[in-house]
Amino acid sequence: MPHLESMVFKEITARLTDNVLHIQFNRPHKKNAMNLTLVEEVMQCFERVEYMNNLRVVVIQGSHGNFCAGGDISDMHLSSLSESEREDTIWHFNRSFGRMITQVKHSATPVIAVVEGAVLGGGFGLACVADITIACDSAFFALPETGLGVIPAQIAPFVASRIGIDQTKRLALTGEKLNAEQALRLGLVHGICQTNAISEQVNKEIARIKQCAPQANSNTKRLLLGLNNTPLEQILDGAATAFVKSLTSEEGVEGTQAFIQKRKPSWCE
Amino acid sequence: MPHLESMVFKEITARLTDNVLHIQFNRPHKKNAMNLTLVEEVMQCFERVEYMNNLRVVVIQGSHGNFCAGGDISDMHLSSLSESEREDTIWHFNRSFGRMITQVKHSATPVIAVVEGAVLGGGFGLACVADITIACDSAFFALPETGLGVIPAQIAPFVASRIGIDQTKRLALTGEKLNAEQALRLGLVHGICQTNAISEQVNKEIARIKQCAPQANSNTKRLLLGLNNTPLEQILDGAATAFVKSLTSEEGVEGTQAFIQKRKPSWCE
Amino acid sequence: MPHLESMVFKEITARLTDNVLHIQFNRPHKKNAMNLTLVEEVMQCFERVEYMNNLRVVVIQGSHGNFCAGGDISDMHLSSLSESEREDTIWHFNRSFGRMITQVKHSATPVIAVVEGAVLGGGFGLACVADITIACDSAFFALPETGLGVIPAQIAPFVASRIGIDQTKRLALTGEKLNAEQALRLGLVHGICQTNAISEQVNKEIARIKQCAPQANSNTKRLLLGLNNTPLEQILDGAATAFVKSLTSEEGVEGTQAFIQKRKPSWCE
Repeated sequence: MPHLESMVFKEITARLTDNVLHIQFNRPHKKNAMNLTLVEEVMQCFERVEYMNNLRVVVIQGSHGNFCAGGDISDMHLSSLSESEREDTIWHFNRSFGRMITQVKHSATPVIAVVEGAVLGGGFGLACVADITIACDSAFFALPETGLGVIPAQIAPFVASRIGIDQTKRLALTGEKLNAEQALRLGLVHGICQTNAISEQVNKEIARIKQCAPQANSNTKRLLLGLNNTPLEQILDGAATAFVKSLTSEEGVEGTQAFIQKRKPSWCE
Repeated sequence: MPHLESMVFKEITARLTDNVLHIQFNRPHKKNAMNLTLVEEVMQCFERVEYMNNLRVVVIQGSHGNFCAGGDISDMHLSSLSESEREDTIWHFNRSFGRMITQVKHSATPVIAVVEGAVLGGGFGLACVADITIACDSAFFALPETGLGVIPAQIAPFVASRIGIDQTKRLALTGEKLNAEQALRLGLVHGICQTNAISEQVNKEIARIKQCAPQANSNTKRLLLGLNNTPLEQILDGAATAFVKSLTSEEGVEGTQAFIQKRKPSWCE
Repeated sequence: MPHLESMVFKEITARLTDNVLHIQFNRPHKKNAMNLTLVEEVMQCFERVEYMNNLRVVVIQGSHGNFCAGGDISDMHLSSLSESEREDTIWHFNRSFGRMITQVKHSATPVIAVVEGAVLGGGFGLACVADITIACDSAFFALPETGLGVIPAQIAPFVASRIGIDQTKRLALTGEKLNAEQALRLGLVHGICQTNAISEQVNKEIARIKQCAPQANSNTKRLLLGLNNTPLEQILDGAATAFVKSLTSEEGVEGTQAFIQKRKPSWCE
C-alpha cells in the first residue's frame, strides 16, 4: 500500500501537517458533489489513516464556500449501459457512499468536519459522522432526495443516529433547509463560527484532542460505537478489562503519573 | 371497505380537500378525550389512508381550543361487568390506544398534528408520532397518569422514541407540565405559532411535503421506521436496492429530469 | 440486613426525613472522588431503598461545593500487589462503579441528583442516571479519562444513554468542559438554579413526585427502563396488562375516585 504522502488524487487534496491529516474536496464547479472517484479517494485516505503512526486528527472540509452538495452521477455514462448493467452500476455507486460514511465514522483517529455553504444529501450524511462538526455561519443543510423522486438510502441511517429518527424523518419528508443555528440545536453540529474564524476554532479542537491520549481515544471511540450491538452487562464487563489494560499501558502509567506530578503527559505537544 | 367520503363518524370529522385528509376530534365537552369509538374511527380512517390514491398528507387536530385530554373511560359502563369481564374490557381499551398510535406512526402518508390547549396522556402520545407536529402557543403537555395511580402504558414507548427515555421518565414520574416552548426544545414539536397563524403554518408544511415525491416519501418513512430492528449493514444493502428502484421508477426519472431541465417535477402542484 | 437508620457510614451520610432519603458524599478533601468504600456504601443504601416502606424519593448530593470529581484509586495500595493481583483489584474496583451506577439507575424509588462544582468521570455518570438532575450554576462537567491515558469504561454507556452516543463521544475525545447551561441544552440536567435556591428547587421536585402514586411511579420506571430490550408489540401487550393491574389496584381506585370527587388522592401529603 503506497504511503499517503506519495499519492496523487484527482478529486480531493490530502495534506499532512503536525500529525493532522487535512482532506479537502476539490470539485468546486460541482459544489463538491461526490462522484465515484471522490468516494474512492476518501476511502483510500481512511484505509491509510488506520496505519499512520502519530496521526492525531483528520480534518475534512470542502472548498470554494461549499462543503458538499451530495452525490453526482452525471459522469457515469449510464445511458450507454444495458438496463441490468445500469441497475448494477447505480447499486454499487449508491452502496459505496454508505461504505465510505461507515469507514469515516469508525475511523480510529478522531475526525473533525468543517462545513460551509451547501451540506446536502451525502454531504449531510458525512457531517453527521464526524466526531466534531463545526459549521461556518454560511452553512445550510437539507436532504433533497425525495424532491428528486429518490430516497436518502445510504445517508438516512447515519443522520438518524446523530439527530434521531424523528427529526431525520421530518427533514427527509419535507426537504426543509436548516441553517447553522438550527443544526446546532439539533446536535447535528457542535459549534458555529464565522468563516474568517474557522481555522482558529479548528485549532482549538485539535489542541483539545491532542491533550487526550491517542490509544485511549481510539479505545473510547470503539467502546461508544459498539454500544448498540451488545447487552449492557457484557459491555461493562469488557469495558472493565479494557480499563485495566489502559491503566497499566504506557499511556495510563504516563497519564496518571503526570497527573500526580502536576505536569503535562508526553502526548501533549 | 366503504370509501372514506361516504362514511359518517360520531366522534371525529374527516374532510378530504386538495389531496389532504383533515381529521378533527369532535368531543369538545370532554376536551376531546378519546373513548373507544373515537379510537376506532381514527383507525378506520388510517386503514383507508393506505389505499387512497393521490392522498399526500393527513392533518390531525382537536377542536374548541384543545387537542386531546387523554383517554376517557367514563362511558364504558364498567360497573355492570363481572371482575374478569371488566379486566378484559379495560385491557382491550388500553391496548387499542397503542394500536391506533402505532397505526398513525406507520402511516405511509405523512402526518401533520396541530396541537393546542390540552395535550395529555394519549393526546401526548399521538403528538409524538406525527411526522410534523406544530404547537399553538396555548398548548400544554403532560403525562398525568401516575397522579391518578395508573401508568402511561401504551403511550410511554412512543413518547420515549420521540424525546428519549430519560425525559419521558422524568415527565411521567413528576406529572410536570410543559409549555410549547419547552416542548420545542425537547423535539416533541417542530414549530410553534399563534392560534390565528396556524393554518398558514400548516399550509407551508403541506406545500413542502407536496414538493417531495409521494412514493419516495413513503419509502423513506419505511426505511427510517425500520432502523431499530435490523443490523446496519443489512439496512444499507437493502437501501441501495430501494435506491435503484426509486431512481429507475417513474418518480425518479421525472425528478432527475426535472432537476436537469430546471423545472418542477409533475408531483408539485 | 440492618436498617439504614442504624448504620454508620464512613464516606457518606444518609439521613431519612419526610419519606425522603438524603445521601451526601463526604470526602470534601478529595472533591468527593469515589473510593471503593464510598461506592459500597452507596450500594448498601440502595439495597435498602428497595425494602423501605413509604420512601418516596432519594436525593443524592455532594458537599463543600463539589458533587464528585470521579474515581479515587490513591488509597488502594496497589504498589504492594503482584501484577495479576493489581489487575484483578483494578478490574473489580472499576466494575463496581458500573454496578453502583446501574443500581442507582434501576432504583424503584425516584432519584434526584443535585450537582455543583466538579461533576467529573464517575460523578458525571451518576448525574446521568438520576431521574431528575438539578445543577447549581457552579457546576462543570467533563470526562477527563482520556487525558489521563485511560478510558471512561463504566461511565460512557450511561452518559450515552442520557445525551446520545455522539455527544458523549465528542466529550470523551476532547475532555471539553461543559457549564450548567450547556448541560441543560444537552438534556444532561433538567434545571439550573443558584446555590442558595437549591433546596427550594429540590422541594418543588419532591412535591411533584409526591403527587404521583408510588407503585405507579415504580412500575412506570420499570416500563421505561425495559424499552430497549424487548420488541415493541410485546412491550405494549405487557403494558396493557400492567395498566389493568394499576387501574384495579388500591392506587388506581383511589386515584380515579379522587379525580372524580375533585379531591387529592391519599398519597399526596
